[in-house]
Amino acid sequence: MSTGHHEASWRLPESDPHAGTSLAHFTRLAQTAERGKFDSVFFADSPVLFGSVGRRPVGAVEPTVLLAALAAATEQIGLIATASTSYNSPYNLARRFASIDHLSGGRAGWNVVTTAGADAARNFGLEDQPLHRARYERAAEFLEVAFKLWDSWDDDAVLADKAAGVWADAERVRAVDHAGEHFSVRGPLDVPRSPQGRPVIVQAGSSEDGKVLAAWYAEAVFTAQQTLEEAQAFYNDLKVRTAVVGRNPEGIKILPGIVPVLGGTVAEALRRERELDELIRPEYARNELAKTLRVAPEDLPLDRELPADLPDEDEIEGAKSRYTLIVALARRERLTVRELIGRLGGGRGHRTLAGTPEQVADEIESWFLGGAADGFNIMAAALPSGLEEFVDHVVPLLQARGLFREEYTGSTLREHYGLPRPANQYEAGRLAGV
Amino acid sequence: MSTGHHEASWRLPESDPHAGTSLAHFTRLAQTAERGKFDSVFFADSPVLFGSVGRRPVGAVEPTVLLAALAAATEQIGLIATASTSYNSPYNLARRFASIDHLSGGRAGWNVVTTAGADAARNFGLEDQPLHRARYERAAEFLEVAFKLWDSWDDDAVLADKAAGVWADAERVRAVDHAGEHFSVRGPLDVPRSPQGRPVIVQAGSSEDGKVLAAWYAEAVFTAQQTLEEAQAFYNDLKVRTAVVGRNPEGIKILPGIVPVLGGTVAEALRRERELDELIRPEYARNELAKTLRVAPEDLPLDRELPADLPDEDEIEGAKSRYTLIVALARRERLTVRELIGRLGGGRGHRTLAGTPEQVADEIESWFLGGAADGFNIMAAALPSGLEEFVDHVVPLLQARGLFREEYTGSTLREHYGLPRPANQYEAGRLAGV
Repeated sequence: MSTGHHEASWRLPESDPHAGTSLAHFTRLAQTAERGKFDSVFFADSPVLFGSVGRRPVGAVEPTVLLAALAAATEQIGLIATASTSYNSPYNLARRFASIDHLSGGRAGWNVVTTAGADAARNFGLEDQPLHRARYERAAEFLEVAFKLWDSWDDDAVLADKAAGVWADAERVRAVDHAGEHFSVRGPLDVPRSPQGRPVIVQAGSSEDGKVLAAWYAEAVFTAQQTLEEAQAFYNDLKVRTAVVGRNPEGIKILPGIVPVLGGTVAEALRRERELDELIRPEYARNELAKTLRVAPEDLPLDRELPADLPDEDEIEGAKSRYTLIVALARRERLTVRELIGRLGGGRGHRTLAGTPEQVADEIESWFLGGAADGFNIMAAALPSGLEEFVDHVVPLLQARGLFREEYTGSTLREHYGLPRPANQYEAGRLAGV
Repeated sequence: MSTGHHEASWRLPESDPHAGTSLAHFTRLAQTAERGKFDSVFFADSPVLFGSVGRRPVGAVEPTVLLAALAAATEQIGLIATASTSYNSPYNLARRFASIDHLSGGRAGWNVVTTAGADAARNFGLEDQPLHRARYERAAEFLEVAFKLWDSWDDDAVLADKAAGVWADAERVRAVDHAGEHFSVRGPLDVPRSPQGRPVIVQAGSSEDGKVLAAWYAEAVFTAQQTLEEAQAFYNDLKVRTAVVGRNPEGIKILPGIVPVLGGTVAEALRRERELDELIRPEYARNELAKTLRVAPEDLPLDRELPADLPDEDEIEGAKSRYTLIVALARRERLTVRELIGRLGGGRGHRTLAGTPEQVADEIESWFLGGAADGFNIMAAALPSGLEEFVDHVVPLLQARGLFREEYTGSTLREHYGLPRPANQYEAGRLAGV
């Protein structure tokens, strides 16, 4: 959410309730993150009006056009937008991300999602969402088509030979002639190969299907993990899966989300967290929780624990990993519905760290050195203030400990992440064929 | 084309052959046009790699993301991008244009095209393009869906009531429940109503189907007209058609394209035009002409006129109005294929004006006062130089004659064009229902 990851953040006196459509707001966020030497800014998305417009600011600008605007307003920071493989065509989307990669000088990333929910499907001529497995099969083919299109121009295809009047070498630009289960796409793309070769591929679903997709294709993974042990297990599992499919496990970066709530003292941080939680309207939040859990709102009395008989993850066709995380969190800590709503309202499943800058830096260090994370997705409870506080007070501690860069050492998102530039699948063939 | 509307412009020493992917290039163009107090900048588009990559720079960034980047790099000028109704879904596209309208503070326009050609169709799972009439029927329904989505939030839907914890009034945001021939879209849009209510609708096809679509929906029309008499006839025809469907004819602005080639003297201007024409490689251009005319290249000897037996416009399923214009131009002036290629290479069917700034200003004045145009689409032969010369030398003459603004008087594209802000179709109903 544009005003922060805590669902009540928009109600703070400092918050701009029109932030979701404000270029000035997003520019300030991106420039602040760039000042803090972040790898990237990242925008979630689903092509549907989510939840209740009464409850919180749900209307916001579309992230790919937002990225392009931020490309013009920033110099170095990576720019990642979410886009759906279920409700886009590969030619259009591959083209937009290649274009953003050009306009930003190689800073684009694409968070690949399959988009859960019947509500989104009904904006695209469907009665209900395709099944979970079918959505992931389509996603895999979508990525294969996108890779072909991004590789349809050799890196050196543009000759720019003004004297001879030859702009590009037609031999180094080719149709891709993809004909598959879900897509038939001739190509070539109408954009030359982009600075990064391909935008960075990000993935964020932690279901079984999501992890399979990540192992094959993802270069960065956003994930919600509540405990060090779970995060280590997830980290190891995904690195092993990546190695098993023949990829270098260093080519996939695991980035758990954390929701920092900072204070000069522990007491101040906890007070600020409590103030935010008290701004949540529980009746709205319970309706949304009921929808996620596939039960009626009246089956969730606010001061009792979750009912014992909830569906298995296998029966869920929506956002499976979010479902599992919520149920596990409630059961593990024996939370009442009211307490669960507070926890979810704060971080929506991500780990909330309320404390001093030192404590937050300690937690980050312990996860990073403990093999639970290659980096973190910093999801400030309130924006822009929470991001500014993190940049001003936590980043310097991480830099002093040698855990984080003091200056950018590269100019592309791949360089920030330490990821290689992908070879062109056709160009390799061309060279081998000589 | 990014380096100018003359197809050989990229070969000039001054031209950047990578302009099509350069944010710096497009920023310079937009800022120059803004300095000249232009209503807007406009980018053509087709989701396919057009023609030969050898011949000229055909790979360029996608225009909707380009607009968003330019929204961040400019303050006042309108921003118009072309997008296809045949190869997009209404929810995604309506959302992107509403987002650009928000990010730019009300400066977005959409040039609605149906996209001719089998090559584009093959990038989207089709073997061939849909028939011309079917494309236009889909376009009309696409626009109806987009209007519903843009109106799905009342202008005053966002209450931002922090004290009560109510962000928006759910009664003022509604599903659109469109179920038509081509689309089923539930809505609402996930973006609040944008500053202009709806982005400005632009149309550029001058075929019979195109003119019908324009009369119903367009607020600005780009057109290629070679003579004053033809331009007057087109202007009057479209104004009458617009009145016939019950719209105010002042609500549609007719904007013929002109290709200025400026010089301090007539001789200098003609020399610069000739230098550009001599950079055209006729073998490439003849192949493209043959494709448009549906004949074999060898049926077009360079030093003869066009063959007598060409298809009727009715048989053309592609860009009908362009076909008709080319044939009429060649027949009227009895041009050889070589001469025709020179004329088309310069302005691709638009009117080339080679002369002094005074001469170009005179022609603009005579068309404007003569009822042939409400304004012009300035398509400089070489970019950025041709635009800079026009802004520095022609605009001051038009301002001195009282024909053109000296400063912007509004902040939105609608205000620049003198167009009203559209009422919300649902909100009108809501008020009437009280």
